[in-house]
Amino acid sequence: MRAAVMYGAGDVRVENRPDPKIVRAADAVVRVVAACVCGSDLWPYRSMPAVDTGRPMGHEFLGVVEETGADVTGLNAGDLVVAPFTYSDNTCDYCAKGLHTSCRNGGRYGFDGVDGGQGEAVRVPYADGTLVKLPVAADSALLPSLLALSDVMTTGHHGAVTAGVGRGDTVLVVGDGAVGLCAVIAARRLGAERIVLAGRHEARTGLGREFGATDVVPERGEEGIARIRELTGGGADKVIEAVGTRQSLDTALGAVRDGGTISRLGFPQYEEGPIGPAPFRRNITLTGGVSPARAYIGQLLPDVLDGTITPGRVFDRAFPLHQAPDAYRAMADREVLKALVTP
Amino acid sequence: MRAAVMYGAGDVRVENRPDPKIVRAADAVVRVVAACVCGSDLWPYRSMPAVDTGRPMGHEFLGVVEETGADVTGLNAGDLVVAPFTYSDNTCDYCAKGLHTSCRNGGRYGFDGVDGGQGEAVRVPYADGTLVKLPVAADSALLPSLLALSDVMTTGHHGAVTAGVGRGDTVLVVGDGAVGLCAVIAARRLGAERIVLAGRHEARTGLGREFGATDVVPERGEEGIARIRELTGGGADKVIEAVGTRQSLDTALGAVRDGGTISRLGFPQYEEGPIGPAPFRRNITLTGGVSPARAYIGQLLPDVLDGTITPGRVFDRAFPLHQAPDAYRAMADREVLKALVTP
Repeated sequence: MRAAVMYGAGDVRVENRPDPKIVRAADAVVRVVAACVCGSDLWPYRSMPAVDTGRPMGHEFLGVVEETGADVTGLNAGDLVVAPFTYSDNTCDYCAKGLHTSCRNGGRYGFDGVDGGQGEAVRVPYADGTLVKLPVAADSALLPSLLALSDVMTTGHHGAVTAGVGRGDTVLVVGDGAVGLCAVIAARRLGAERIVLAGRHEARTGLGREFGATDVVPERGEEGIARIRELTGGGADKVIEAVGTRQSLDTALGAVRDGGTISRLGFPQYEEGPIGPAPFRRNITLTGGVSPARAYIGQLLPDVLDGTITPGRVFDRAFPLHQAPDAYRAMADREVLKALVTP
Repeated sequence: MRAAVMYGAGDVRVENRPDPKIVRAADAVVRVVAACVCGSDLWPYRSMPAVDTGRPMGHEFLGVVEETGADVTGLNAGDLVVAPFTYSDNTCDYCAKGLHTSCRNGGRYGFDGVDGGQGEAVRVPYADGTLVKLPVAADSALLPSLLALSDVMTTGHHGAVTAGVGRGDTVLVVGDGAVGLCAVIAARRLGAERIVLAGRHEARTGLGREFGATDVVPERGEEGIARIRELTGGGADKVIEAVGTRQSLDTALGAVRDGGTISRLGFPQYEEGPIGPAPFRRNITLTGGVSPARAYIGQLLPDVLDGTITPGRVFDRAFPLHQAPDAYRAMADREVLKALVTP
């Protein structure tokens, strides 16, 4: 099969790889119908040292089950399924608590002999625990929004849930990437009344407004913080940080109200952060983390199916698989918000 | 009047200071009946640069109202009152939310012309908003436990509340100082079933067991973490960090279960901390901060009055005011857990 493989910063190649086969009895092989490039794929795209053996890329995909192992009982060949961005057994103590990203048997696509999602097919471990069956046809117009459940929409939702967003709240979302925009959808869905979106890319913040943002703050740094504090009457109680840089964390800390909560969704591009006396005196809570997408797909699926939420609108360009390198380049250059990749 | 004043590390003096008088109409003057030395007083005791104008010390006290300003309506001369460790108006938006430590008119004893608590009398700003009347006589045997409401007990409670401790929980308390021991009381009071106390001072951990700790872990560092993880079947869901050093934070991070919460009560002795990819992947929440004691005194008072909780047992030695320097020395040398100071 053909699949996208990264060999270092800026070096994504589409090449032949072995066709996936059932290895363990809990596996399924899924023929990919739609995949995409994640904002987090851009971190290695910008910084990965050159390697001889490339890393299969992609962790967001949906597709059709082609074959199942002997222990798989909940899926059949022909089922259309979406894959959360990590696989998990859905039976261990962590999964039972809804923290599938800490699954005792879980793992990541593209590592440990498991295929990446940006390819023609994927062997999915713990298929029963991982994959969620979709009650639509493989040519449904809902496919982009269903694909968004594999990561960006469930991640945005994780931010809103862990920040404790509820009816009538004022919420700040830092970052106008696909996750930030999905966090706007999620905050609105949970009842937030005022949603301030910090971002400066007009096409994206425009979509953010359509998703429910009531205010957009393009200014950065101290100027942006001052503007947000003014708009929110002294700071936001709930902040969703959807970038991952120290600068965006500083914006979140500057704009959150005393006693407020910052939920981090952007993968931290730092090892240490400012958690000394200042936020301690202000009783700031820092929460969030890698979203247990599997736990949320079932909650969000009905709203996607009936059109209440349309997170698939974050996909603003589709690339055939052989153009995956272009998809990376276009996203890295911010020409494209989120790239759909179809085999 | 006589009062304790700090002039630098290791240099506490008891000296004459002006008798407090009503300055603003919302003030009250309180004649101190009992005060104490806080673990946080030991940080400047160990590190404060020498100064010419000393800093009045102490922020935990109870006493009898001597005089009230024209605007004070809820208190009368002769009332026995306890002071939370910061003053607050109890009317601003933060106070209305129960975050009195962020009060827009609030402040700290010993700063901005306000007396410290380790003295014969204190001018208390916003007396109606700050002081809580106690329905006992000034010679009540409950005085030590009521005094504990000014800081250590309400701080321990803040840790248990923000960590989300509930019925049946397993809780780790890091630190066997007075706050850690009060956190044990608070965790038990909120229904924790298993309470692991990390501390190595046997007299203190012994008291911790009487307060409700089910297990004591004296080992530190990696050894301590391994022991806690073993005792808790892989880590504690709720951790209360009651020390404030990087080492104790590292213990908390090592011993918390994925998806768990660390509530910090110990004033951070660091500016930056480890909030990078590792805790992000594990979905660790960091919460807590300076306790809004004023918000909690009313909740805890009935349990002190009926003897359900006895936080006053943390006071293991009383010093007359003129021996305040000895009280500091004894606490700094860990001869004394918590020193009561009586004018």
